[in-house]
Amino acid sequence: MHDTLRINGDRLRHRLSELGKIGALPGGGVCRLALTDEDRQGRDTVMGWMRELGLEVTVDAMGNVFGLRRGTEDGPPVMTGSHIDTVRTGGLYDGSLGVLGGLEAIETLNDAGITTRRPLCVAFFNNEEGARFAPDMMGSLVYVGGMSLEEAMATEGIDGKTVGECMQAIGAQGDAPVGHPDVHAFIEIHVEQGPVLEESGITIGAVEKVQGISWTEFTLTGTSNHAGTTPMRLRHDAGYVAMATAGFVRDLATRLGGDQVGTVGALEIGPNLVNVVPDQARFTVDLRNTDNDRLQQAEWQLHEFITQLAEREGVTVERRQLARFDPVPFDPEMVDRVEKAARDHGLSVMRMPSGAGHDAQMLARVCPTSMIFVPSVDGISHNIDEYTAPEDLEAGANVLLQVLLDLAA
Amino acid sequence: MHDTLRINGDRLRHRLSELGKIGALPGGGVCRLALTDEDRQGRDTVMGWMRELGLEVTVDAMGNVFGLRRGTEDGPPVMTGSHIDTVRTGGLYDGSLGVLGGLEAIETLNDAGITTRRPLCVAFFNNEEGARFAPDMMGSLVYVGGMSLEEAMATEGIDGKTVGECMQAIGAQGDAPVGHPDVHAFIEIHVEQGPVLEESGITIGAVEKVQGISWTEFTLTGTSNHAGTTPMRLRHDAGYVAMATAGFVRDLATRLGGDQVGTVGALEIGPNLVNVVPDQARFTVDLRNTDNDRLQQAEWQLHEFITQLAEREGVTVERRQLARFDPVPFDPEMVDRVEKAARDHGLSVMRMPSGAGHDAQMLARVCPTSMIFVPSVDGISHNIDEYTAPEDLEAGANVLLQVLLDLAA
Repeated sequence: MHDTLRINGDRLRHRLSELGKIGALPGGGVCRLALTDEDRQGRDTVMGWMRELGLEVTVDAMGNVFGLRRGTEDGPPVMTGSHIDTVRTGGLYDGSLGVLGGLEAIETLNDAGITTRRPLCVAFFNNEEGARFAPDMMGSLVYVGGMSLEEAMATEGIDGKTVGECMQAIGAQGDAPVGHPDVHAFIEIHVEQGPVLEESGITIGAVEKVQGISWTEFTLTGTSNHAGTTPMRLRHDAGYVAMATAGFVRDLATRLGGDQVGTVGALEIGPNLVNVVPDQARFTVDLRNTDNDRLQQAEWQLHEFITQLAEREGVTVERRQLARFDPVPFDPEMVDRVEKAARDHGLSVMRMPSGAGHDAQMLARVCPTSMIFVPSVDGISHNIDEYTAPEDLEAGANVLLQVLLDLAA
Repeated sequence: MHDTLRINGDRLRHRLSELGKIGALPGGGVCRLALTDEDRQGRDTVMGWMRELGLEVTVDAMGNVFGLRRGTEDGPPVMTGSHIDTVRTGGLYDGSLGVLGGLEAIETLNDAGITTRRPLCVAFFNNEEGARFAPDMMGSLVYVGGMSLEEAMATEGIDGKTVGECMQAIGAQGDAPVGHPDVHAFIEIHVEQGPVLEESGITIGAVEKVQGISWTEFTLTGTSNHAGTTPMRLRHDAGYVAMATAGFVRDLATRLGGDQVGTVGALEIGPNLVNVVPDQARFTVDLRNTDNDRLQQAEWQLHEFITQLAEREGVTVERRQLARFDPVPFDPEMVDRVEKAARDHGLSVMRMPSGAGHDAQMLARVCPTSMIFVPSVDGISHNIDEYTAPEDLEAGANVLLQVLLDLAA
């Protein structure tokens, strides 16, 4: 119907660049932690743009912001969006692309004088990154009813202040109620934050699912001994058990294959001296899979390995679960729509999982959902060197426009 | 000849306890770092005891102290001794037993009115621990001509002061020249600092050799990536290479067997976050063997392993050799004498290597040398919980007396 409609890439990049000036870091990148003064400036700027585009702006009690464009009919809107908060050393596109890509689609429709049948809505959700207040995706979690507003408000941040206090301080709280939203469908465009698209030479990722996450912290206690005078058979080396487990995590991920990944990202040993057998080790294991059965299998094998090795070595193990999320499958029809829109635009496309968390996985609880990924150069993410080529930003926003038109028709 | 002569265990323990009061730590143990004021008090106390026992005290330009007891003939003395400096959290016996065990043997001979044919000498060497000034065993190294006095004096400590300055400050420098000593034989009694004697239920270790030491620090650089979005095959995980190498070091030591030990005692990774693939890792490998060929073989296998693994992973490796000492074999006849003396006293005895460094390994360069080990409870060393049972201290000192009599006859 509107096959020849294209977004304006320069305009999209201009807005991304303007928003990136708020909280800009000296060496590049941006720091716009949730509910800081920089976040407030960002919120005001984006709400200003929404109003300029004729959207009806509402803010809910959780600080989630919605810009509504009416359709020819009433009813639940087709929603797109993401977040505008960043980590401490964030890039220009993580989150912002999903919000400003949505606004660019709206402006393209405005310019073309097109009114869709269903209403359209561009949203940005509060505190997606979780870099100041855990958990991440808090705004969308509250929006879909997964966490109470009261609990969210009472959450204490890394600086000791609560979400409620900080929302008060920057005036982020709106008067719309939260919860039980009626949304026709949700589609989010986001940078991949990984290297798969770039490495495959493909422009568009049609996101099928979000990986489940299992984070465990292990604390091991052995016996500190002289590295020269203690024969191998008499050691209780906590460092060795930790490091051998890290080797096992790699083997496990390789052996299970598929989407399985496994990472030992944090490890500290004590007393941490060249000639002393470590009696202390603390380390984390991050396991992810899009299939919950296989994720549980990975967790079980890890458990068995470290239990047996620690027993053999005479080292005690304490476990603490830091996080556990089940995988989230997206709606197959929605994924098809993304794939089709990319093909219709002559763009290369692949189905893929998301290895990171996104607001879309919360929205998937209440409506058909999918995501559009564009390539991240070198897979760099949460880093001032995050980068996506201009033509990829533009291609992704065109796919978004097409999917919105398709859903709202 | 003097088979029934026995040292006085109470007197030995009393001197150990008195010396242990100098630099005593609130929770037990002692801090008497080389060339501190506590070290000076310790030196004064022990030199006082030497004079009380009628020994002729000389101090060389390196601060090594010698107490000579004349024999019926002149000529090179039979020497015993060790050190009185400690690590920051040392025990009462490490070093002190070797010096005060020697004095106890002298007092026993005095009481019995025995004059040996050869002179006897009890020595304590400056800065054995190396906890303030590297390298360790500095005093005995200079004594045997392995390091120049000038180099030793210019050595800067962890607090920025030089050995020379600190010797000046506490008046530790004597007027006897250093170097090229004429010693008939050297025997040192020391706590094992390892668990082997206790675990074997044996009282005396006849030390055959000191392990060679190879310390290497590896610095690895990979690429920092998102732990969720980066497939295993696209990772350059510096932490993984480090930890897998730690697993290899254990396998290597177990496979080579014999005296081979291998330890990864220090490891740090960066950025050290649960969900980020580490791009930085720095760790140390401590390899020891009493056989230099096998030690070189272990070094080579380690080199091959990490080179190949790092290349496969796309991680760069920098190496820095922190220490490399060849193994030191002791004189077989001296070892026989220790073994025989223990048997003559009805004590259980085993031949064993030393996994730690000792002044005796320096003396072995200039004269026939061996050591007598007594058990360390739980193998604990360089720790305020270092402990050796009173009867074991006494048994060891009796063996020392017997070996001295044997050598000086």
